[in-house]
Amino acid sequence: MNERIRKIGIILKKQDARVSSVVSEVVPWLRARGVDVVLDSASAEQCSVDAVFTSPEELARQVDVVIVLGGDGTLLYAARLIGANSVPIIGINLGSLGFLTEVKLDEMYSAFENVLSGQYQWEERVRLDVEVVRDDVVAARYLALNDAVINKGALARIIELEICINAQPVLFTRSDGLIISTPTGSTAYSLAAGGPILYPTLDAFIIAPICPHTLTNRPLVIPDRDEVEVRLHRGADVMLTVDGQVGMPLQPRDSLKIRRAQSTMKLVLPFGSNFFTLLREKLRWG
Amino acid sequence: MNERIRKIGIILKKQDARVSSVVSEVVPWLRARGVDVVLDSASAEQCSVDAVFTSPEELARQVDVVIVLGGDGTLLYAARLIGANSVPIIGINLGSLGFLTEVKLDEMYSAFENVLSGQYQWEERVRLDVEVVRDDVVAARYLALNDAVINKGALARIIELEICINAQPVLFTRSDGLIISTPTGSTAYSLAAGGPILYPTLDAFIIAPICPHTLTNRPLVIPDRDEVEVRLHRGADVMLTVDGQVGMPLQPRDSLKIRRAQSTMKLVLPFGSNFFTLLREKLRWG
Amino acid sequence: MNERIRKIGIILKKQDARVSSVVSEVVPWLRARGVDVVLDSASAEQCSVDAVFTSPEELARQVDVVIVLGGDGTLLYAARLIGANSVPIIGINLGSLGFLTEVKLDEMYSAFENVLSGQYQWEERVRLDVEVVRDDVVAARYLALNDAVINKGALARIIELEICINAQPVLFTRSDGLIISTPTGSTAYSLAAGGPILYPTLDAFIIAPICPHTLTNRPLVIPDRDEVEVRLHRGADVMLTVDGQVGMPLQPRDSLKIRRAQSTMKLVLPFGSNFFTLLREKLRWG
Amino acid sequence: MNERIRKIGIILKKQDARVSSVVSEVVPWLRARGVDVVLDSASAEQCSVDAVFTSPEELARQVDVVIVLGGDGTLLYAARLIGANSVPIIGINLGSLGFLTEVKLDEMYSAFENVLSGQYQWEERVRLDVEVVRDDVVAARYLALNDAVINKGALARIIELEICINAQPVLFTRSDGLIISTPTGSTAYSLAAGGPILYPTLDAFIIAPICPHTLTNRPLVIPDRDEVEVRLHRGADVMLTVDGQVGMPLQPRDSLKIRRAQSTMKLVLPFGSNFFTLLREKLRWG
Repeated sequence: MNERIRKIGIILKKQDARVSSVVSEVVPWLRARGVDVVLDSASAEQCSVDAVFTSPEELARQVDVVIVLGGDGTLLYAARLIGANSVPIIGINLGSLGFLTEVKLDEMYSAFENVLSGQYQWEERVRLDVEVVRDDVVAARYLALNDAVINKGALARIIELEICINAQPVLFTRSDGLIISTPTGSTAYSLAAGGPILYPTLDAFIIAPICPHTLTNRPLVIPDRDEVEVRLHRGADVMLTVDGQVGMPLQPRDSLKIRRAQSTMKLVLPFGSNFFTLLREKLRWG
Repeated sequence: MNERIRKIGIILKKQDARVSSVVSEVVPWLRARGVDVVLDSASAEQCSVDAVFTSPEELARQVDVVIVLGGDGTLLYAARLIGANSVPIIGINLGSLGFLTEVKLDEMYSAFENVLSGQYQWEERVRLDVEVVRDDVVAARYLALNDAVINKGALARIIELEICINAQPVLFTRSDGLIISTPTGSTAYSLAAGGPILYPTLDAFIIAPICPHTLTNRPLVIPDRDEVEVRLHRGADVMLTVDGQVGMPLQPRDSLKIRRAQSTMKLVLPFGSNFFTLLREKLRWG
Repeated sequence: MNERIRKIGIILKKQDARVSSVVSEVVPWLRARGVDVVLDSASAEQCSVDAVFTSPEELARQVDVVIVLGGDGTLLYAARLIGANSVPIIGINLGSLGFLTEVKLDEMYSAFENVLSGQYQWEERVRLDVEVVRDDVVAARYLALNDAVINKGALARIIELEICINAQPVLFTRSDGLIISTPTGSTAYSLAAGGPILYPTLDAFIIAPICPHTLTNRPLVIPDRDEVEVRLHRGADVMLTVDGQVGMPLQPRDSLKIRRAQSTMKLVLPFGSNFFTLLREKLRWG
Repeated sequence: MNERIRKIGIILKKQDARVSSVVSEVVPWLRARGVDVVLDSASAEQCSVDAVFTSPEELARQVDVVIVLGGDGTLLYAARLIGANSVPIIGINLGSLGFLTEVKLDEMYSAFENVLSGQYQWEERVRLDVEVVRDDVVAARYLALNDAVINKGALARIIELEICINAQPVLFTRSDGLIISTPTGSTAYSLAAGGPILYPTLDAFIIAPICPHTLTNRPLVIPDRDEVEVRLHRGADVMLTVDGQVGMPLQPRDSLKIRRAQSTMKLVLPFGSNFFTLLREKLRWG
């Protein structure tokens, strides 16, 4: 990574009090090192920081690195904001350790120094390209870093889904819903639903039913070159949710086409980062 | 059971074509044996049967036995219609074997003969008395034969619940929701969420979180003399659902008080009925 | 509990260095309060304490209370030593909190004072009466506080068991083994095998298969008045293990008869003891 | 596959009565089509078939294809017999459908015709190379098609294992044991222990603890380029078992080094073979 860092974008956890004071220190620190800083307008306003504004859409194209201040939820939001663009993201957690926001506040400046001096590594995280097909037309399209979840509403009855892989019928399931997860998402909702933990760079997806009616409907792990199609057979009040943050209502006969997205998310790894150390700490092993 | 059966109520699966022909045979068969038959008006209309009408509320008080034609869902509906009254219910399944509707169509008349001759047994099934307390007032009250479920909506984020047993704090859980289940409900939704199977007459309830964030939040089985309180700490778009059929939206700070209902549901057991035989068939053991 | 405590037995964790110093303080402390102290000879030797010796068999009959110094394993050992006798047991843990040894070292003397002054409560814990029947003869008999486990040897292939409850066939299972657990044992091995947590005084047993071949063979919870019979159909190198401590090899056609033991174990509860507080701490909830 | 098939080896389920009659038909059928047939001497004896004998070691080198008559266990045995050699194997099940023996008896001859005419496909199945290191010396080495299992004996207490991946410590686990499984083995023992189902050609291994003491020790899926080391810290009566068939006792401080074997197993796929169809049938989905 030899290119000089000229401009950095900062994305913040919304409505978080600690953020203002942190950002009001970080911005001058970066500028003092000759780096331009941009925030989206909402963030700049939140922090009363006199930074160069930009539209969210512009951010990804202008900057060399994005700093996320918040938790994993903020990083998922940032990854979606940046979209298909491949700007490296570095996640600083403001409180508890996150799977995606591994850098603690007191390690922040040394992490920034590594980034500015070009001494950093990143990991390419696979994302899902999720298309909602309705009446043979792509009605919506999402990029998921963690997961695409089909879920019934609270009062809704069991839903019926048909899952095809590479156009082959695989499973007809009656359940509360279904999770299609990346390795990155394997430690999030999929884990709570009984899915396995996947090493972050494994070339695989998880297909995990949520509270399946048929007890033998166990989580499947498939190559990420496969194309998954999920058809909603029966079920009112059914939603698609992407990364737990955005989504849309689904209708019977809607179909989801899910494949590996062409662009990956570049996650900057702090020095000495280790997935298994993270796991042990987050899951309280040993 | 020596009392003569004089009047029988019939409750039907709604909008099911097979039902009309079955009922139009069952009603004259019963009348020919000197038994009065009543249907709720909706059911009578559905079948074009010239039966004595009654309001749903009256049904339970007038009849000696209720026949349910449908599946387990219809029997749950019937049990709710009958409410605190203790009329024995016999469940006839129109298709696949049910945990509550064990009698097949071709065994129906011999089951009826046993009932009419007083040669039948029933099992007392415990129910939940569920109160929704809002601002210190009981806002709603339900009777549950299977379960009371607190569940998040499809797009909703994780919800936070505090569970107290006999006024002692037990668990603060972040999850998709929570199931409080009777032994009868242990083979329904609770099983899909990872709960154990309880023998139907065990004096116990299950408390089972749905997709808990904390992996060690395992299902609990407690004596049914205990009083459970569930407080909704955080969560928008949260619903209470009773027996998968009725319910209401919950608000933060709402509290559920759940205890053993004073009245049981009397389930007529077909001759030779055996819970474990049912289990083996329904769960495809062996 | 108004009877004066005249004699106390102490049972120790074997080969534990910390024990000597603790016991050499506890014995004079108790004697100074007019209480006789007895240890089994092995324990007395281990601690170089000049206590009144007794044979293990005599211990239960002579003493008013038994103090266990060690962990849950030591308490299980003590409960077996005491057998059908109903001497109350108080468990002091020397290290980490146990489900049965709830009193910490620094709370020990105040717990003892409560016991000596008669101000203590106990909980009756149900035990299993386990008979091994071979060729129609009772070949062995055990008392289990936690569980009776049928387990295959390390190189052995899957074993086949038939389970009957009250002489009714329930399940024919192919698995690594089977656990019959009391409520007390529900937080031990059964939990690791996927069983639920039972409130300690629930009148119920768990039947939990270990790694069942048939995925729908889920844990069962049955009333503790039921009699369970487990028949070994196929399997070489199969063992019965009781409370993880004693046992014997089983042979094909051996049968286990398991019922609620007539005598309970009386567990002295420290002041303010609460099962759910224990659970939260041991399972790291919240 | 254009090479002409000149010689076929047959490997049989041991001590199975149906086998004799089947083999005594298959051998002349193959010879009539100009194909030499060899059996290992034990098999030939079992069937009273006058076939060309060979030592098990020679078999793999001489033949163009191996036919397995039996179940998945027989195919695992055959794969081990053939070892690192890459002869394609076709599995005929004599009874119930197997994951590795997909061809039924009545489809057998048409499957053979496809093989003889060169019209067949195979799938490369990854195997584990398992080394037992004791006192810095490789004490034993195994090839596993399904899994390598470290398991405690029936009476043994919990065992303690340390797992490293690529020389990085990952997990210190207290459990009944540990399974390292290939995708092929994911539908075998690993599934019973709570592991996910892996697509057969996924480049991944499963690491699944058996009845872990720590409930958050969930199954891990890692790239099959990773090298796994498992060190036995504590535990008497501990065994290594490979494919459920062979193995050896382990001692404290023994270490297992497990990596992807250089040679794959070539599994001949019957026409129209589909993993998900197999899954549905074997796990009774839908």
